[in-house]
Parts: sequence; C-alpha cells; structure tokens
Amino acid sequence: MTPERLRALLDDVAAGQIAPEAALEALSRFPVEDLDYAAVDHARPLTQGQAEAVLCEGKSPEQVEGICRALADATGGFLATRADAAVQACLAQAFPEAKVNPRGRTVWLATNPSLPITGRGTILVITAGTGDLPVAEEAAVTAAVFGNTVARLNDVGVAGIHRLLRKSDELRQAAVVIVCAGMDGALASVVGGLVTVPVIAVPTSVGYGAAFGGVSALLAMLNSCASGVVVTNIDNGFGAAAAASRMNRL
Amino acid sequence: MTPERLRALLDDVAAGQIAPEAALEALSRFPVEDLDYAAVDHARPLTQGQAEAVLCEGKSPEQVEGICRALADATGGFLATRADAAVQACLAQAFPEAKVNPRGRTVWLATNPSLPITGRGTILVITAGTGDLPVAEEAAVTAAVFGNTVARLNDVGVAGIHRLLRKSDELRQAAVVIVCAGMDGALASVVGGLVTVPVIAVPTSVGYGAAFGGVSALLAMLNSCASGVVVTNIDNGFGAAAAASRMNRL
Amino acid sequence: MTPERLRALLDDVAAGQIAPEAALEALSRFPVEDLDYAAVDHARPLTQGQAEAVLCEGKSPEQVEGICRALADATGGFLATRADAAVQACLAQAFPEAKVNPRGRTVWLATNPSLPITGRGTILVITAGTGDLPVAEEAAVTAAVFGNTVARLNDVGVAGIHRLLRKSDELRQAAVVIVCAGMDGALASVVGGLVTVPVIAVPTSVGYGAAFGGVSALLAMLNSCASGVVVTNIDNGFGAAAAASRMNRL
Amino acid sequence: MTPERLRALLDDVAAGQIAPEAALEALSRFPVEDLDYAAVDHARPLTQGQAEAVLCEGKSPEQVEGICRALADATGGFLATRADAAVQACLAQAFPEAKVNPRGRTVWLATNPSLPITGRGTILVITAGTGDLPVAEEAAVTAAVFGNTVARLNDVGVAGIHRLLRKSDELRQAAVVIVCAGMDGALASVVGGLVTVPVIAVPTSVGYGAAFGGVSALLAMLNSCASGVVVTNIDNGFGAAAAASRMNRL
Amino acid sequence: MTPERLRALLDDVAAGQIAPEAALEALSRFPVEDLDYAAVDHARPLTQGQAEAVLCEGKSPEQVEGICRALADATGGFLATRADAAVQACLAQAFPEAKVNPRGRTVWLATNPSLPITGRGTILVITAGTGDLPVAEEAAVTAAVFGNTVARLNDVGVAGIHRLLRKSDELRQAAVVIVCAGMDGALASVVGGLVTVPVIAVPTSVGYGAAFGGVSALLAMLNSCASGVVVTNIDNGFGAAAAASRMNRL
Amino acid sequence: MTPERLRALLDDVAAGQIAPEAALEALSRFPVEDLDYAAVDHARPLTQGQAEAVLCEGKSPEQVEGICRALADATGGFLATRADAAVQACLAQAFPEAKVNPRGRTVWLATNPSLPITGRGTILVITAGTGDLPVAEEAAVTAAVFGNTVARLNDVGVAGIHRLLRKSDELRQAAVVIVCAGMDGALASVVGGLVTVPVIAVPTSVGYGAAFGGVSALLAMLNSCASGVVVTNIDNGFGAAAAASRMNRL
Amino acid sequence: MTPERLRALLDDVAAGQIAPEAALEALSRFPVEDLDYAAVDHARPLTQGQAEAVLCEGKSPEQVEGICRALADATGGFLATRADAAVQACLAQAFPEAKVNPRGRTVWLATNPSLPITGRGTILVITAGTGDLPVAEEAAVTAAVFGNTVARLNDVGVAGIHRLLRKSDELRQAAVVIVCAGMDGALASVVGGLVTVPVIAVPTSVGYGAAFGGVSALLAMLNSCASGVVVTNIDNGFGAAAAASRMNRL
Amino acid sequence: MTPERLRALLDDVAAGQIAPEAALEALSRFPVEDLDYAAVDHARPLTQGQAEAVLCEGKSPEQVEGICRALADATGGFLATRADAAVQACLAQAFPEAKVNPRGRTVWLATNPSLPITGRGTILVITAGTGDLPVAEEAAVTAAVFGNTVARLNDVGVAGIHRLLRKSDELRQAAVVIVCAGMDGALASVVGGLVTVPVIAVPTSVGYGAAFGGVSALLAMLNSCASGVVVTNIDNGFGAAAAASRMNRL
Repeated sequence: MTPERLRALLDDVAAGQIAPEAALEALSRFPVEDLDYAAVDHARPLTQGQAEAVLCEGKSPEQVEGICRALADATGGFLATRADAAVQACLAQAFPEAKVNPRGRTVWLATNPSLPITGRGTILVITAGTGDLPVAEEAAVTAAVFGNTVARLNDVGVAGIHRLLRKSDELRQAAVVIVCAGMDGALASVVGGLVTVPVIAVPTSVGYGAAFGGVSALLAMLNSCASGVVVTNIDNGFGAAAAASRMNRL
Repeated sequence: MTPERLRALLDDVAAGQIAPEAALEALSRFPVEDLDYAAVDHARPLTQGQAEAVLCEGKSPEQVEGICRALADATGGFLATRADAAVQACLAQAFPEAKVNPRGRTVWLATNPSLPITGRGTILVITAGTGDLPVAEEAAVTAAVFGNTVARLNDVGVAGIHRLLRKSDELRQAAVVIVCAGMDGALASVVGGLVTVPVIAVPTSVGYGAAFGGVSALLAMLNSCASGVVVTNIDNGFGAAAAASRMNRL
Repeated sequence: MTPERLRALLDDVAAGQIAPEAALEALSRFPVEDLDYAAVDHARPLTQGQAEAVLCEGKSPEQVEGICRALADATGGFLATRADAAVQACLAQAFPEAKVNPRGRTVWLATNPSLPITGRGTILVITAGTGDLPVAEEAAVTAAVFGNTVARLNDVGVAGIHRLLRKSDELRQAAVVIVCAGMDGALASVVGGLVTVPVIAVPTSVGYGAAFGGVSALLAMLNSCASGVVVTNIDNGFGAAAAASRMNRL
Repeated sequence: MTPERLRALLDDVAAGQIAPEAALEALSRFPVEDLDYAAVDHARPLTQGQAEAVLCEGKSPEQVEGICRALADATGGFLATRADAAVQACLAQAFPEAKVNPRGRTVWLATNPSLPITGRGTILVITAGTGDLPVAEEAAVTAAVFGNTVARLNDVGVAGIHRLLRKSDELRQAAVVIVCAGMDGALASVVGGLVTVPVIAVPTSVGYGAAFGGVSALLAMLNSCASGVVVTNIDNGFGAAAAASRMNRL
Repeated sequence: MTPERLRALLDDVAAGQIAPEAALEALSRFPVEDLDYAAVDHARPLTQGQAEAVLCEGKSPEQVEGICRALADATGGFLATRADAAVQACLAQAFPEAKVNPRGRTVWLATNPSLPITGRGTILVITAGTGDLPVAEEAAVTAAVFGNTVARLNDVGVAGIHRLLRKSDELRQAAVVIVCAGMDGALASVVGGLVTVPVIAVPTSVGYGAAFGGVSALLAMLNSCASGVVVTNIDNGFGAAAAASRMNRL
Repeated sequence: MTPERLRALLDDVAAGQIAPEAALEALSRFPVEDLDYAAVDHARPLTQGQAEAVLCEGKSPEQVEGICRALADATGGFLATRADAAVQACLAQAFPEAKVNPRGRTVWLATNPSLPITGRGTILVITAGTGDLPVAEEAAVTAAVFGNTVARLNDVGVAGIHRLLRKSDELRQAAVVIVCAGMDGALASVVGGLVTVPVIAVPTSVGYGAAFGGVSALLAMLNSCASGVVVTNIDNGFGAAAAASRMNRL
Repeated sequence: MTPERLRALLDDVAAGQIAPEAALEALSRFPVEDLDYAAVDHARPLTQGQAEAVLCEGKSPEQVEGICRALADATGGFLATRADAAVQACLAQAFPEAKVNPRGRTVWLATNPSLPITGRGTILVITAGTGDLPVAEEAAVTAAVFGNTVARLNDVGVAGIHRLLRKSDELRQAAVVIVCAGMDGALASVVGGLVTVPVIAVPTSVGYGAAFGGVSALLAMLNSCASGVVVTNIDNGFGAAAAASRMNRL
Repeated sequence: MTPERLRALLDDVAAGQIAPEAALEALSRFPVEDLDYAAVDHARPLTQGQAEAVLCEGKSPEQVEGICRALADATGGFLATRADAAVQACLAQAFPEAKVNPRGRTVWLATNPSLPITGRGTILVITAGTGDLPVAEEAAVTAAVFGNTVARLNDVGVAGIHRLLRKSDELRQAAVVIVCAGMDGALASVVGGLVTVPVIAVPTSVGYGAAFGGVSALLAMLNSCASGVVVTNIDNGFGAAAAASRMNRL
C-alpha cells in the first residue's frame, strides 16, 4: 500500500467513485496480512518509504511464492532477493512477467504502470573485481526497483589504480556511490577520498583463506581512513541500495 | 582551503586586489603541507567536501598541536577528535578560542566567521542509554562543525519502547538519523523501521562480557532486519556525522 | 521410567498384583540401560523431570532407532530432534504411530495414554521471520511433548514493530515466552520490555554474512537491554522448550 | 511507580483523600522522566514487573546519582549495579540509608516499608569457586531486592564433585537455581542434571589464558548437555536474578 | 625400522648370517625414503617410539597407498587415519589383510607377527555420548596398534552423572584415561577429579550452533578446573592415543 | 589429608596410640572444610593424588590466606599459584617459612618433614625464550612440590636450532618433557619429534600483535605435527606440572 | 603489453616498418581493455613487473575464458589460478596449447617464444607434508611463469627434523625460499633460522579441528621467532611466487 | 661473531699474530653462550646473516642488560627492540654510547667501526598516518643497523591519494618498500600496484573499535589485491626490516 495508492483510494471514496464498503475491503489487509507462516507488512511503504522485499534464503519456494502473491495482490509487484535456482524457477512460473536476474539472484515483478524515477541523482555501483558482480547486480536491481537511475563501473580495484582514476567523471556525476569489494576492501577508502557524496561500502565474500568469507573486507571498510564511508553486511547489495535510495530521496 | 576561500582568492587576483605573488604564497601549502611527521591535506574540502579532522589517538600532544596549527593557519579552524585529557589541555592552551567538549573528547576551533549552515535538514542523534552519550557528543559536535542543524534524543533504548514511541514527531522531522547504541544494538533496527530517511547506526563499546567492546552491537546492526540501515565503526561518532553531512548536502 | 510409572509399579507390588520378580524384571533396565553404543538414562524423568530426548545429529539411523526402541520399551514413547531425512524415514518405518514434523525435524512417539497437560500456563513461541519457523517448530513440539499448552505468533520482527504491538493480548496471556530470531535478534529485547514473565531467547542461524550462523543474534540476545532475558544455544528450540517447561511447572 | 503505588494513589483519589491536582502532580513524571542525560522509565514495574535498575558502568558518578535520585523520589528506593569505588562512595554519601555491597559492587536503597517477599520459592545461588563470589553477590542482592528468598552454596566446583553431591538437599529445595562458574563452566551441566527446576547459568570471567574473559564458560554453558539450562551474559548476576525472579513469580 | 628390527639385522650381520651387502640394501631406505610426493620417515620408531601413521586427509588415494606400501615394506604394517570411503576402499583392495574400521575411519595392517603388548596398564577410552564414538574408535584402534591394552566406557556424559559414578571401578583400574566429549566438554573435568592417573581430554566436533565445531569443548577442557587434564586437537583420537601410549610406556 | 596421613592416623588408632575421639576430631574437616567463601577439599590427595593448590587470581589476600591456613592446618603445607605482589606479601607475613618465588608467582609452604621424591624419572622443563621463564618457574616449582626431580633447559627456541640439538643428552634423560613457548610455539613440535616420552606443551602469552596473548602458540601446539604432544591452557605451568606428575607416578 | 613489446612497437614505428595507424590500433587496448564484466589491466607488466594473472574463483568459466582471451591477444599468454575442473576444461578446449596442472589448479598458456629466465637465483619451494603439495604446485608454476628457476623439497616437516637437516645443501643454494606448511606451521621458523636469504611462509589449509582452515599455521608464521620471515594469505602459493619473483629480480 | 670477525681471527692465527690459546678463548662462547636465563646465539650472523636482536618485552631490565652485554662483548654492539622506558633507561646508563630512539622504542649500540652499508638499494619506509610512526621508526632503525640505506615517506594514506601519487619518484627509486599502516591497511595494496619491487606490509595497531588492535589491517594486507605483497606481524617493524635486509642483499 503505497502512499499514492492510499491517497487515490481515499480520493475515490470522497468523490463517490468507490463505495466505502469496497474501500474497506481494499484496506482489509492493511497494515498487516497474516499468512500461516508470515505477517506481510503492507504498511512498509508508509513507514520506511519502500515496499517490503522478500529475502528468499531460509524460506521454501512455496512460502516465497505465497508472500510474493500477497505483495503482488496489494501493490502490483514485488522484489525477491537471494533467490536460488529453485525459487527463481518457482517464481518465474507463477509470475511470467517477472524479471529473473540469475547473476544477482533477484526476481522482480514491476508494478504496472511501473513506479516513476523519484530519486534525484544517479546511484553509481562500483566493483573492485569481476567476482563482486553478483552483489553489484543485486544492488543495481534494487536501486532501480526503488525508483532510482543507476550507473555502473566494473573491475576498478586498486591493484591497478589507473583503472579507477581514468573514470573520475563517472565518480563526480554520482549522487550516491556504492562500492562492492572483497578481499582487502581498499577500493572503498580510495573512492571515499575522491568524492564528496555519500559512499556505501559493501564487503563481498570474494576471496579465500584469511578473507574469511568477507570479514577482511568488512573490517577494512569499517576502519576506512576516508571519513564518511558507511558499511553494510557482507554481500548485502540489497541493503546498500535501500540505503542509497533513502539518501537519494532526501 | 575551502572552495569559497579558493574562489575568493582567485577573484581578488582577477580584480587586482591581490598581487599574484601574494596569491602564490597563499597557495604554497596547497594541496599538501609537509610537516616532519604529517602531510596535512589541504585539498580535502575540495575532494571530500569537508576539512580534514585530526584523530588525536596515537599522536603526541605536540604532533596534534602542530597539525592543528597548520589547519588553523590555512582554514581558520580545525576539529580534533578522540582527544584525551593531555591533548585537550595542550590545545586549550594553544588555541584559547577553541571549544573543548570533555565528554565527547573533541576540541573545535571554529573558523571566523563561522561556516554557514549548509545542510538542508536536521540531523537527529539518538542514544539508547546514558552510556552512549560520549559517542553521541562526538557525532553532534562533528555534524555542527560540518554545517548542519543537529537535534538530540537520549536514553530511548528498546527495553522501554514507549520512551521511543512517544517521540515519533522528533523522528519524523529528521533528515538523517544517527543511532548510537551498545549491547544489543536493537534500537537501530526499531528506528530503521519507523522512518523513511537514512539511518546510520553507530555501535558503542558500552556493555561488558559478551558485548566484546561493541562487537555485539556492531554485528546486530550489520544484520539489522530493517532495510537501509548503514553502519560505522564502533564508537565512531565522527564518521557517522561525516557521512550524515554528506547525505544532508545532497 | 516416569515417577507415575514407578509409583504404579510399586503400588501393584504392594497390592500383590505384580510379583516381585516381575517388578524386578521391569526395573532391570533402571536407571541405566547399556546398549553397545549408548547408556540410555531411564532415570531422567526423576532427576530432571523430563524423559531423555534423542539428539539425532551425529548418530547413524540405526543407532537412533535403537535408542528410541529402548526408550519406547521403557516409557511408551520418545522424542527425537534434529532428525534428518534418513533418520525421519527410518523412524517412521520402525514406529508407524510416530508423528514426523519435517519442518521442525522432530519425530515424536506419544506415550499411550498420552501425558496430561501439567504446565500451569501457556508457552508462547514467537518468531521474528519466516526463516525462524523450523526452530520454533522444534520448540513448540517439545513444549507440547513435555505437557504444556502452546501458542504461536509468527513473523513479528521489529522492522515493522506495529506487527508486534497489535498482538499485545497474546503477549500478556503467556506464562513463558520463547523468542526465536536470527540476524539482529532485536525482537528478544523488545519482547523482554513488554512482558513480566520469563523470556527465553533462541538465536537462529537465519541470515548471511556477518550473521555468522547465528552469532550476531546470540551476542545481541546475551546483551539484551531488557533485564531477565535468558538465552539458549543457536537453533536450540528443544532446549528453550525444556527450560520453559521447567519454569511452567514451578 | 509500582502497581501497588498506582492503585493506592487512585484509591485515594476515589476516596477523596487526595485532590486530583495532587494526583496529577504525583503522576507527572509517569511513565518517563526526562533528565538531561537519561529518560528514567517509571513504567517498568508495570511493563516488566521490576523497577529499573541502574547499570553504573559507563556513567559518571553524577549521572548515577541523578538517576538514582529520580528513582528514589518516585519509588522510594533503587538498585545500582556494577558500581565502582567512586560511584559507591558518591551514593553512600547521597543516600546514607543505602546498603553498599563492595564485593558485589551493588548499592541498594530499600523502599520504606520494604517490599514483601512475593517469590514463591527459594532462589539458590551456587558458585564453582571463590573467584565467582562477586557475581554471585550481585545475583543474591538482586534476587532479594526483587522480593525473593535467597539461599547460597559456595565453592562446589566439579573438580571435587563430592562437595556438590553432599549438598543434594539444598539442591532439591530450590525453586530456581543460579549457577555462577568460570573456566570450564562444567558445574552448570552437572547441576542441570540433578534438579528438575530451572537452572540459570552465569558464566564468569574467572580464569586466564584460554578462558578468554568468560568465553570458555559461556560456550560450555550454551552447549550444556543437560537440557533446560539457560544462560546469561558473562558476569551478569543481575540479569540472572531478574530472570529467576520472573520465574519465581509464575 | 623398529629398534627390534634394527638390532636383529645387526645381530645377523655379526653372526655372519646376513652379508653386509644385504644389510646395506635393507638399510638403504633408512632413515628416510623419498617418494615423489613424500619423504617417509623410517626413523620414527627410534626417535618417537612409534611408527609414522598416515594422515589420509588431504592426500589422494594413490598417494596414501604409496606411502602405506613404503611403510609396509619397511616394517610389515601401517596405520592410516581419517581415511574416507575412497581411501578405505583403495587400501582394502591393495592390502587385503588390513582391518578397516569405518566408524573410526582407520585402516590398520598389523605387522606379522604382531607387536607385543608393551604398555604397562590399561588405557581407558570414555565417551560422553554416542556422537563421540568415531573419535573414540580412532583412539582405541591407535592405542591397540601401539601395543596397549584398551578398555571402553560409553555414553556417560554428566547430564546423568549416575551413569559415570556407577562405573568407578573401571575408572580406578585405568593407567591412563582418554575422555572424548563435545559440546560442554564437562566430562573431562569430572573425570579429572575422580582419578589420580593422567587424563587426556579430546574435544569432539559433536554439537551445533555455539559448539563451533568443537571449540566450546576445546575451551572448556583447556580451562578444566581439575588439575592435570591435558588436551589434544579437536577430534584427534589418534594423537590422544599416541600420547597415552607414550605415558603408558614410562 | 594425604593417604599416608590417613593411614598413619588409622594405624595409631588401631595401636591404641590415639583415642578414637582424637582421631574423629582430626578427621572432622574431612573431606570438605567449609569456610565462608570456600569449601576446602581435603580429599583431593585421595581422589587426584595431589593436594589442592590455591589459584590466587580472583581472590582477595584475606581469602587466600584463609584457604592456605586451612590447608596448612590439615596437611602441614600448601602451594599458592598466580600470586600477585599483594598476595605474596600477605602470605610471606602469615607463613614466614613459606618460599616465595616472585618470578613464578608461587608461594610454597613445604610440609615438615617434606614429602619424599615419589616421581620415578626426571621432569624436564624447557623454554623457547627468556620471556617464557615465569611459566617455566611455575611448572618447576609445582613439579618439585608434587615430589618430582626437575631439570631445566632455557632459551632453546627453534630460530637457532643448534641451541636445542646440542642438548640431546638432556632431552633423552627426561621421563616427561614440559615445553613452554609463546609466539609460534614451534619448539613443542620439534621436541615432540626428538623424544619418545610424553611431551606437554604449555603455550605462553609471550609475544605481541597476532600472538593474541598466547593463542598463536596454543593453536600451533594443538596442531603439532609430532604425534603425542598434549597441551594445557595458556601460561598454565601449574597444570602442566600436575599432569607431568601424574604421568611420572605411573 | 610487456616493456619489451612496447619498445619493439615503438622501434618499428621509428624505423618506418609499422605505420602509425597500425601502432595506434595495437595500442588501442592499452592500458585498460573494457570487457562487459572486467577491465583487463594491460599496463600491469609496466607497473608491477608481471602480467595480470586470472584468479578464477568466483568467476564463471565464460568470464574466465573472456579475460584469458583478452590477455592472450595482448601478450600471447596468460596464467589462470584456482581453476576448478569446469574452468580447467573450458580453458583446455579454448586454448589447446595451454598447460593444465590439476593438482595446482593452474592453467598456463606460455607466450611464444616463451619468456626468458630473468630471475637471478633459484626459488626453492618446500612443503612440510604431502597435503601441502597443491599450494606448492601453484607457487612453483607461478614462479616459473614469471621467469625464475625453481627447485623443490617435499615432506620435510619438523616432526622428523632429520629429513630437513640432511637437505642443507639445497637450502643454502636457494636465492629465495617459499615454505608451504599447515597445522603448526613450524617449518617456516626452523627454515628461517637456517638460511640467510628471504623466507616466504605460506600457511596452508591442511589439518582439521583447531587448524581452523589454516589459521593456526597463519598465526604461527606471523609470530615466527626467526626474524625476517614474511607471510602470505592462506593457500596463496601464487602470491608467494609473485613476491619471490619480485625479490629475485632485485 | 660475524663472518668477518671469524675470518680475521683465523687469519691472525694463521699469521702467528694470535696464539691458538687466545683464539680458543675468543671462540669459547661460540656458537652459544649460556646465561642463567638465556642462551645467546652468537652463530646467528652465520646462519641468518644478522646478529640476534633483543626483544625486550617480557624480560626484566636486568635480563636485557645481561643479554646486551654478552652481545656487545662478542660483536661490539647490539640492537634492542620494544624497550619500554625502564629498559631504555637501564641500557642508556649501562651503554652510554648507545642510541636510544624513544619513539621507535629501540636502543642501538653500533659496532666500532660501524658496519658498512652492504644493502644494494634503498629501503623505503612509508606510513599511512602519523600514528604509524613508531612502527616505522623501528623498521628504519633496524634497516640501518643491518647495513642498508633508508628513505622515508610519511602520512600518505589513501584517504587523500594525491599525497601518494605526487611521490612517484620516491616510490620508483626504492629497492624494497615497507608500508606501515593501520585501520584499513589500504595503502599496502595501492603501493603494491604502483611498484615492481618487493612490498612488505606491516599492519599497525593504530585505530580503535573494529580495528581490533591491528587485525583489520592485518587481514586486509593478507588479502591484498596487488600480487606480491607479503606481510609481517602487527607492529613488527623489526621483522619487516630484517626481511627487507635479506632481500636487499640478494
């Protein structure tokens, strides 16, 4: 239930175009719809500015489909993240219009008409290496779903820093920058020193040995010597984009 | 060397009010001024939008004073953080106009005239408990130094959640929210679910035992079930404010 | 060997209805029955108030079946936890009357007649999200097996705190509350601040990255700012229910 | 504001013995009293069944005194925990009637008349060794403050298990057992196997080397092979007693 | 090359029963035999009192077979540990006389004639639960291979401590005790308090969640409150038996 | 109450040299003597073969003195470990005959007549570097107190391995070897490969940075590639000597 | 683009043998070639002295092939590391001339003509045990690709230190030594004490339990008591060889 | 005993200038001199190419002085590291010629005549920030003591990367680079990408919170995306210089 939908519904009631009973029915699942295994939070666009996304991990395909169905019925669309192959297949069959992004492990059913671009600037998603792409995909899809213009910059890790420095124009044109990097996570600090806008660092689980599944990058990013770098959970491209979207709407 | 100072200097040269030689002298320490033990980065207002702050920890009082002197000579002011008692005393003597905040361990010499408020909205700094105050002080001072309006909300931890819920007006009026909490760090998640603006979570080292000096709060915040919560290093009120300031200038 | 069974046996002997030799035979495996690979503890209902449950993990299906057989022979029933698919199938075939709960990974053979409800109040099992359901199932099944009335409340995580607050009646009617939550574990603290009865927090391994398989929730719960929250091992729904049952019999 | 106080106030208003204005004044700080650095939660007796205790660590003596003053004004008494020598001295001077327990680091001002014993059974506090005494003291004082009868059993660690086994009577008479142990934390498991009532395990920071400040005991207790053992934070005698008190009032 | 073999060879040379050239050939691989991927240490019986055992993990079946062949050629037998199914099958085919222990994951080819029992007393291997059996098997097989009498005691964890106490005779008759336990590892401390002989604690990876693959038991055992308990690596039944064998030959 | 004392007492009673009443009095504190803060375990020589030692850390000087007094009254002597300067001074004053070892932080009051040497061989205590000496002192004192002959070998770390190899005679003459080493802990593995007798590795907290207070040495020792090396807690010279003493009496 | 290739190109242009347009085309992908998913860094031979190697882990076979194609087109060859079976098969088909090393998981396409040996001395790669061979293979292949002479020494762990000491000639002839060892990592310290040249320690993930996937060896090596031992990431044979190659070209 | 000293001694004997008895006396402490608490390794210049340095931490001032005296008697000089104020004072008094470096915590007594510069190139020591200076001092002093030319570059952390890039000449002229950085440790990766010579990364304990005393920098450096970066222990400037010196003598 987005603010726009809610307002339109009330306007229609005021204009006599919808009977109060019908409006009541439309609102009956608001703000929370109880499934057997989930309490779908239809108030989230009002409280947090964004529809609830479905974290698929730890849920059965049937549970994911049920929650997505409830969201689609209420808002016309949904975003599912961390969907493995089984969930992707299940949702693709249930919602043929949905866009499946295998690399980013997202499934997105756009509302119809789709949401307008409401973010004021461009969210730039950067990767240090090719292995960071899945996380960057998740971030880019999410940012777009949440109504932002998205740009990309790939494989510009600091081991060859000229790859980054030659892209200073792209850096300067961003409103918010999301940096996805594993291993030493050093790219976040360098980027943080080159731009004046917010930088969101996403540690990735790329690497082996003492990378500890992303911990090395996480710690490096938390200790970034560039001031103003903020951090999300390891591999949390979704969260980074959600935060960037909040910033981009200020 | 803020952009304003640089432009004014160039304007004066263009207008013939300052001789090129004098301008050259004024720029001689730009962008980097080499001290024996430090390379003061006078370009930072241009590259990152904020003057370099001085992290006092790990530096001798003499080193801190020297770096602050260089910054004050160049920009008229400085901000020193994590200043222990000896550093506070040293700076208070060297710069009698500086404001010392013992609880937040900051020393601030404002430029004269002081910088205008350039942030568009209010940065709200929240604490879960009284023990989080030093970190919140550091954040609040920094946000103010960087040209933002600051509001405060103290001791509203979730153990008595009615303390937070009665303050919904303050929450809704913020442009950016900084949440300082130790122990379970739960306040960040609850706040993240109540507002539509960016939420920056600052884990604090408050607590004992399995709080592990802030690690418990850090992990909880990184795993916040509210989307869009971003995190800084433990006790890093300065960093949170620097990030909030970047967001508030978008 | 429950206290009831023991007393009945002795009563029968006293009444001459059972010959001492027969009683001796019935008691021959008491208090410990030695299998080749296990020493089944038939005294546990006396010492701990609850029959020994069988933790299947780390045991072969044959070993599990043997231990369950010994328990069933002695008490008429058993509870097996953390049973994977192979163990579930093995037990289902060996004990056709047993109830298999695939989501909670439990297999339960009720004594006949089944044990009466001896717990004085209701044990309420809460989950923060759908992913916490397996752990909650284990807790709910265990609590019921141990003779308690059980209620459920699902998917009320703090990211949408209105989902929890609208359920205050359910909260107030519980005698003991079990909170199953992963990631930030914040639900335990919020619930702990809303009720006056014991709250048992069960961290779950839900989440990814810095969730560290439940460690983030575990630490948050150990540091709960609400007083009186106690904690079990990660994913230990069984242990939480066993503890709740002890409390509910006080 | 305990339920009793609130009811008495309303009764007096109803009986005309207190003017509504006076009652209003008495309630003016309810449910939350805002100090500059704290929001004292006077509703906690209603929401959690126990007055808010003051965790002194991380607060200045002045802050602690201010919060205690607010609580004493509202309820007649307070409990302060983890009070170091400076805080103990400050409170002893400000509240001469308060009882200071240096070993347990608590300061307690009893309400007058003191609260009646409302717990139904005895809370037994056990230590594995002499070094666990400070934590046990904190637990025992807290349990008494919260209206429970308390018994003690000291230095019965499992290295000499006959020390524990000879005390089986004390064990059997307890309604709730709190086990304080550091190092291997083994006592919790042994006690958990000997009693049918709830066992709360408190890991202590006793030990050195791989004791890791209580982590070894914490992990051992979380993995107790005795079912139904629940755990608190390291050294958290207060929390254990608060939980025990909740259980003892069921 | 055991001391006995070496002495016999030299005696034969001295007696003229073996030509020096033949003895030279027999010694040609002594003390080290270089394979392409391994340097088999035939001097180990002299330096450490025991033949080198083959840790199969991390080696291909072909490599394991090659090393075992070299040992068998030199000493008549070998002991392979942590052998997975593929290695077990490979060795069973290559050495039909070898004894495969699937539960303990060992393959043992006894020398012919087999080594005499040289250990002076009995090595007692105890488990806390059924899940600890694989580690105990490894220890028992190893102790036997190294020439010791072995006794067993299974599933006597402290949750039902009467299971252990009723076995005091077995405890008292042991020369060395090996305790295999996971989870809380408490059994090692209790046993350490009941016997006067050396106790070797072997933490096992039994358990889940905060058991952390045996870390909880490892830490508990390192911090055993019973003096004189020594510890091996997690799941290292082999190492415990090797140490016990050294002790038993003193 | 050592076995010898107990037997002598009973012999005297049998011989009529001591009245039963006097014997009863002598045994009145056996097996456990309850102090206010401790339950002194006088049965330990019978159950574990060694008198209880007093771990001073975490106890006040008064508590330590009280426990030592109880032990001295019962057995004629005591051993106190990890005694800081205050405890050392307190005990030195209370027991002028006691030997204080400041480096090893032990205080030892020998029984009179002192116990005979009952260990069969020599316990050799080795250090890798000068910084390991305090732990080695603790081990050496303890081993002597427990009736063993002790030899020493200092500063033979593997960085200059010829320092160790030239001492092969000392190595070969030991019945049990205790290796105290911090940092890389490599000495334990090398020694384990050179001797046939038991090797007890004691990780020390020597080192800095990634030594993590002894964790690096602890892990290295647990993973020693030499079979039969067993490990104690970090800095636990006492425990190593207690274990060595058990081995040396086999 | 190696320096040699660049110089040759410019020489040809100067000599009129290549038209400027053709040279421009040849340089068009220099210094960075943008693929969709990667920014291939052709400047690396100039900046770091070595061509970029392709870390296959985390990349799809198609991505790896694409990057290798770009490198082969530019330099004539490539080195791919941590290639699993699927990647190995893909590259073997695409580049039939490439050498696949299954044990070391490398795929190497040599430039034609192959690069000359430019390293001044021999790089000696040592393993402590057979399980360390894959890492050593990766190191040896890399060192050869980078133009160095390589020698090998296998299975000389310190448990049988005579295996190492008999190889002192090989040790003395090396210009740089790479030590691959897991578990206790002790070999690095011993070797570090025996040679005067640089020693690079590579911890391997060999071992189990408290080996923690190589952490035990990593920590031991970081704390090596032999001065001048430097360390790489766990299992990072490639990095060790790259560093050794840098040293060998000094 | 440096090789030069040894050769000169033998030459003198050969020339009849020194009597064999005198030479024998001079060599009597070679290769190891046994003090009560240390075995000074005079062979180290021969085995490792550098005299043994004295790690003062964990040793008493008297012990340090004794070891330094033995070294000075044998070689004419010594290097003591990690010397606290008490040790510095003790050595300054005992060896008035020694140079005390309070910031780097070193005390150096140069041999007379001092050793010639034998390193072939310049060792460049870089710091990311002022707080890294103590570690850099230790490295610089050590490198000089070991006969190398040393250059310095301070405070060039990546937050203001232009500070580093403007120093490319210094970078290119180095034979070996030592990078001292705490917090995110990113400088090591950036430098590793800019030079072709060996880069030794030294993580420092600069920072707070999730810097974990240097662990964040350590992990980042171990995972450096620039190939060929090797790492030392946290704060180990000495070790870095010792390694650099080995490289510089190749």
